Amino acid sequence: MPLSRREFIGLAVAVPAFGFWKPAAQAAPGWRAAAAPLLVDAARLRADLEALGAFGRPPGGTFADGVSRVGYSDADVEGRRLVSGWMREAGLAVRTDAAGNLIGRRAGSDPAARPILFGSHIDSVPNGGNFDGDLGSLAAIEAVRTMSRHGVTTSHPLEVVVWANEEGVAFGNGLCGSRAAAGELAAGEMDQVWNGMRKADAMRRIGGDPDRIEEARRAPGSIHAYLELHIEQGGTLDRAGIPIGVVEGIVAIDRYEAVIRGVPNHAGTTPMADRHDALVAAAQLVLAVREIVTAEPGRQVGTVGQLGVTPNAPNVVPGLVRHTIELRDLSADRIVEMAERIKSRAAEIASRTGTAIDITKTSHHAAALAHAGVQALIERCAADLGLRSMRLPSGAGHDAQMAARFGPMGMIFVPSVGGVSHSPKELTSWEDCARGASVLLNAVVALDRERALGE
Amino acid sequence: MPLSRREFIGLAVAVPAFGFWKPAAQAAPGWRAAAAPLLVDAARLRADLEALGAFGRPPGGTFADGVSRVGYSDADVEGRRLVSGWMREAGLAVRTDAAGNLIGRRAGSDPAARPILFGSHIDSVPNGGNFDGDLGSLAAIEAVRTMSRHGVTTSHPLEVVVWANEEGVAFGNGLCGSRAAAGELAAGEMDQVWNGMRKADAMRRIGGDPDRIEEARRAPGSIHAYLELHIEQGGTLDRAGIPIGVVEGIVAIDRYEAVIRGVPNHAGTTPMADRHDALVAAAQLVLAVREIVTAEPGRQVGTVGQLGVTPNAPNVVPGLVRHTIELRDLSADRIVEMAERIKSRAAEIASRTGTAIDITKTSHHAAALAHAGVQALIERCAADLGLRSMRLPSGAGHDAQMAARFGPMGMIFVPSVGGVSHSPKELTSWEDCARGASVLLNAVVALDRERALGE
Repeated sequence: MPLSRREFIGLAVAVPAFGFWKPAAQAAPGWRAAAAPLLVDAARLRADLEALGAFGRPPGGTFADGVSRVGYSDADVEGRRLVSGWMREAGLAVRTDAAGNLIGRRAGSDPAARPILFGSHIDSVPNGGNFDGDLGSLAAIEAVRTMSRHGVTTSHPLEVVVWANEEGVAFGNGLCGSRAAAGELAAGEMDQVWNGMRKADAMRRIGGDPDRIEEARRAPGSIHAYLELHIEQGGTLDRAGIPIGVVEGIVAIDRYEAVIRGVPNHAGTTPMADRHDALVAAAQLVLAVREIVTAEPGRQVGTVGQLGVTPNAPNVVPGLVRHTIELRDLSADRIVEMAERIKSRAAEIASRTGTAIDITKTSHHAAALAHAGVQALIERCAADLGLRSMRLPSGAGHDAQMAARFGPMGMIFVPSVGGVSHSPKELTSWEDCARGASVLLNAVVALDRERALGE
Repeated sequence: MPLSRREFIGLAVAVPAFGFWKPAAQAAPGWRAAAAPLLVDAARLRADLEALGAFGRPPGGTFADGVSRVGYSDADVEGRRLVSGWMREAGLAVRTDAAGNLIGRRAGSDPAARPILFGSHIDSVPNGGNFDGDLGSLAAIEAVRTMSRHGVTTSHPLEVVVWANEEGVAFGNGLCGSRAAAGELAAGEMDQVWNGMRKADAMRRIGGDPDRIEEARRAPGSIHAYLELHIEQGGTLDRAGIPIGVVEGIVAIDRYEAVIRGVPNHAGTTPMADRHDALVAAAQLVLAVREIVTAEPGRQVGTVGQLGVTPNAPNVVPGLVRHTIELRDLSADRIVEMAERIKSRAAEIASRTGTAIDITKTSHHAAALAHAGVQALIERCAADLGLRSMRLPSGAGHDAQMAARFGPMGMIFVPSVGGVSHSPKELTSWEDCARGASVLLNAVVALDRERALGE
């Protein structure tokens, strides 16, 4: 039986500092006998996270004040310089691809083997936290260091990656670097302007070469696998007291716009029975979305996050309401079913309230499933480290969803205290950071032993 | 039995043009025998309304395109000049009081008698209609003309009034002229600035004298009575097919702000069960307001007209919602009861949704009851004209509510087709305009016969 989270803290964190360690060594069923799992240097990982946290920190602030390290900003440029130095010190050959993705490569013993790619991003939202992206990026470097320290070589080349502009604060659409790698940049995207800067010029700021953007593209099947460690950004692991999440995939996201047309009228002279109040209808629809989404067990979510009323005056019965409906789930079918039920309910509401309701889909992002073999491998690595794990979907988007377009993908989640993210209050305990990094490390080593991962 | 509305059209409208008329002459119970009721000249009233409609009309438009005759604007100044000319032609002695109210006076036979004041306003909202205010103002002049034509004199002086800036589009608070008459102008109000113009200077534009604003004040008890004919601006009369509304009073209006505080969170990573969604709570409150207001029979209304969501992004669970709650009724007690029930329900909603809800009162406007004797008198005048009438509250504010501060007040409503108002589509049939004007005329004559109206 794996150690509880509390028992594990004493082991995995205290141990590296004292230089002795015995692995729990109780393999999960089906896991072939292997060398003792490796452990990252938790203190070094923490020091790196704290050092990177200084770039984009509010003036006069501390680590607890979070960061604003928007993609392509000065803080991003300086942070990437720091990280590329660490890559070099870790023995990696560093380059920046045409899209501005920072890549550190270590050769493998088999010249024909495809690379194992792993990493994350270091750009943040404004007023964000120190763990979103940073952890996965620096844990990847620490994993390479640990392998070198223990003389672990691989047959596959290793590529540590720091993707460009994951958050998409700049230019309004994220996953910029990983979308370039997947060949998913939109036509004309290089000409987008944000804060007076063209995207092409922004890419140049971090060492990209937009004129050769096609060279950043990775062909499907060109990598052995992709791994990413990330904070959960939700509260599931924290609440369950489970240190490792094995991501089943990144959910599909469908967005809809609901337009509710009633009749604007005088709030004093229009009797209640004569109203066609668009906000009363919208309120029923908001509650219907929640009711329909929660009607069945599962991790599907539905959100009305944006809503506007016209004319929006205290003394006028609302004539028009527009609001978004966002549905997320790993299963596209389930999203379609929920949307159909919402539309059907909207028709009832419209009829009952004397309004007209139109619901139209405004965007669709397909789910990106994690590779089943990679999920099982991550699970086994956690168990080998004596760590409890659970499977869960990622409700948020990640670079991993783009990497899944060109290779088998897996993601490791660690707990976010209270589920808080995109905030200076974002927090993952140093213990959980180290646990996640050690799972990543051992998953890379385990992946190297696999000749090929099936579909 | 009074004629139906349809039957009446043939009589009351066709008749003045042909020069013969026999009143229905079936007096309502309690109505003393009197002279045959008078009828205004419907064609003249229509011609006046059409002529005034040209001031503030959109360039190149017709009567059907409505007016924008905002208080103190050039169109208002020119419209008042036209109306004051008509007053003079009707034999009235015209003056403009210190607040810019246009007053046309005809002496009465009893030097000690207090004036009967009647009229309305001619300013409009932008893109408004041709009947709101205009009808009551021009019907008052037509009433005087009709009395003169028939040689009807009065013991009380008659004062036709066109109040200043009723709508309050300029400077954001209405009933400017009537509030000055009631002594209800706020301290410093003369210094308000709107579109670069001080209110004092705006008043001067229409002939007011803001330095002597106190002289516009009318002492309580200084008038015999106040009457105002106005379009209903709601659909009650139109739907009931009843041509005359006897206004019971102008409702009290209480406004509240509801602030609902939840927890903003990631719409992808926050499971449904962990949300503290301020918009879900607000939706329940919006529906609770409607449910509580309609729980008991009556004409009370409640409106959530203005609502804002923070941060208002499709992918963020709403953390904060602010919305207005406006309650209107003739009974202040009933408003308080409804507000208490809404607050109690809000506490339940907050507890159930994991949010905090604060509801605070932001404004209170007391009801202004119409004088019971004047209501009965209007009702009898309508019946004498063979017109069906019904009693109803005014959900909208009117100058009459200020006049009620200094004398017995009564209001006559005529139907608004479809309840539409504050729109170029605002419409009252010419027949109904004439009916309302004739009721006003006969009510003035009947009021003159009353020595004194009790409280």
